[in-house]
Amino acid sequence: MQICLIGAGNLATQLAPALAAKGHRFLQVYSRTESSAAFLAEILDCEAVTEPELIRSDADLYICALKDDALPTVLPLLKFGKGLLVHTAGTIPMDFLSSFTLNYGVFYPLQSFSKLRRVDFSKVPFFIEAAQPESLKLLRELASCLSENVIPTNSDQRKQLHLAAVFANNFVNYLYSIAEELVQEKGIDFKYLLPLIEETANKIQTLNPVEAQTGPAVRFDHVVMDHQLESLKNHPDWQHLYESLSRGIHERAIRQ
Amino acid sequence: MQICLIGAGNLATQLAPALAAKGHRFLQVYSRTESSAAFLAEILDCEAVTEPELIRSDADLYICALKDDALPTVLPLLKFGKGLLVHTAGTIPMDFLSSFTLNYGVFYPLQSFSKLRRVDFSKVPFFIEAAQPESLKLLRELASCLSENVIPTNSDQRKQLHLAAVFANNFVNYLYSIAEELVQEKGIDFKYLLPLIEETANKIQTLNPVEAQTGPAVRFDHVVMDHQLESLKNHPDWQHLYESLSRGIHERAIRQ
Repeated sequence: MQICLIGAGNLATQLAPALAAKGHRFLQVYSRTESSAAFLAEILDCEAVTEPELIRSDADLYICALKDDALPTVLPLLKFGKGLLVHTAGTIPMDFLSSFTLNYGVFYPLQSFSKLRRVDFSKVPFFIEAAQPESLKLLRELASCLSENVIPTNSDQRKQLHLAAVFANNFVNYLYSIAEELVQEKGIDFKYLLPLIEETANKIQTLNPVEAQTGPAVRFDHVVMDHQLESLKNHPDWQHLYESLSRGIHERAIRQ
Repeated sequence: MQICLIGAGNLATQLAPALAAKGHRFLQVYSRTESSAAFLAEILDCEAVTEPELIRSDADLYICALKDDALPTVLPLLKFGKGLLVHTAGTIPMDFLSSFTLNYGVFYPLQSFSKLRRVDFSKVPFFIEAAQPESLKLLRELASCLSENVIPTNSDQRKQLHLAAVFANNFVNYLYSIAEELVQEKGIDFKYLLPLIEETANKIQTLNPVEAQTGPAVRFDHVVMDHQLESLKNHPDWQHLYESLSRGIHERAIRQ
């Protein structure tokens, strides 16, 4: 497959080399930022372009991995020929692409990507969707060369997956950062929390999260909770979070 | 060391067999619940007791791993002799034990314990504290036979560790449960979120949580956030959490 890559952010920087390693050929990498395009183009051994108008119209596949708000400004400047255009975004409905070409779809790997942290795609689930059945087949083949988990999903499901990922990744990471600040305030190294964090994530590989729930809020233990709220008195926002999350945990436990 | 174990909950059920495997001998296990005491006593090859008054007074060490609110009712019924009394609780100050004996301390392994999930203690940090220097030495030796990380910590630091653990474990697990409900509402298996959850926890083994933070809230992306808030319209509590957590992430990012 001959591919044009539109975007050179975290996801593109992880996904494209993984596809190249499976024998797919990249023709071009587009990024508004010259250094990003050049960096990735060198890895992929292809051309770097910084003007959307320079993107070729003869590729088999266009993977658009831009930030959500860049799609409406970049895509109208391209000509797609017969190639399949896919985006990689959680929250953008597939039909958003219908005004640019007839052959379009979505290729959404659910993972948190950083430029410098190599991702093992074999475990990453790919959620795919396409306007044409033969394009869905093509996306399934493409994803299957990287991952065991390829799931056809509609735009409504994908939007919800992205929302769930915000809770399970972005918000979880923010709680880690609060925990880090709390221990650092008392001169304790954050590294001592890492085994607990690891175990918390590992536990739900075998238990469901409701079964795995422990802590003072499950039994609404006022003595411990009042002590802990008092310890947070210099952080009113965290106090407020503590109350909301504890109430949620308790209500979930009695709903069980 | 000859040990009486007071309590047979999740922590006791993991900790005591690990100590026994290192050659420490248990004399008795006390639990109000006969089946819990009997279950653990069989593993430890020792006596099970269900009345506090039956706990011997000639042990070298008393490990009190009761729920926080049981300590004030159980401990006054015991006689300790010369043995060292420790509790395993995060939020209870060491000095709480001073009314029961002169030789007391704290033995706090920071981990999330379940009865049926075997814990690898080698990575679990033990936070220790003692009223007498020779008891601190004894606790250091005891913890060191299980773990590489043994840290003398005062009660104020330990309280903060426990608070941080509530954020990093209990609250994180609750966010997992919200994510689970969200995907299940759209007929998607929660298992597809597990690689993301694993990567989120793994990432901060090398990056600090503020560096690792991604998602719409970092850049306060109103378009995505408003869409996601709209998707949560049937869950006003989660909508509220979404707003609080997003505001926190954004404020943390601009403080950087």
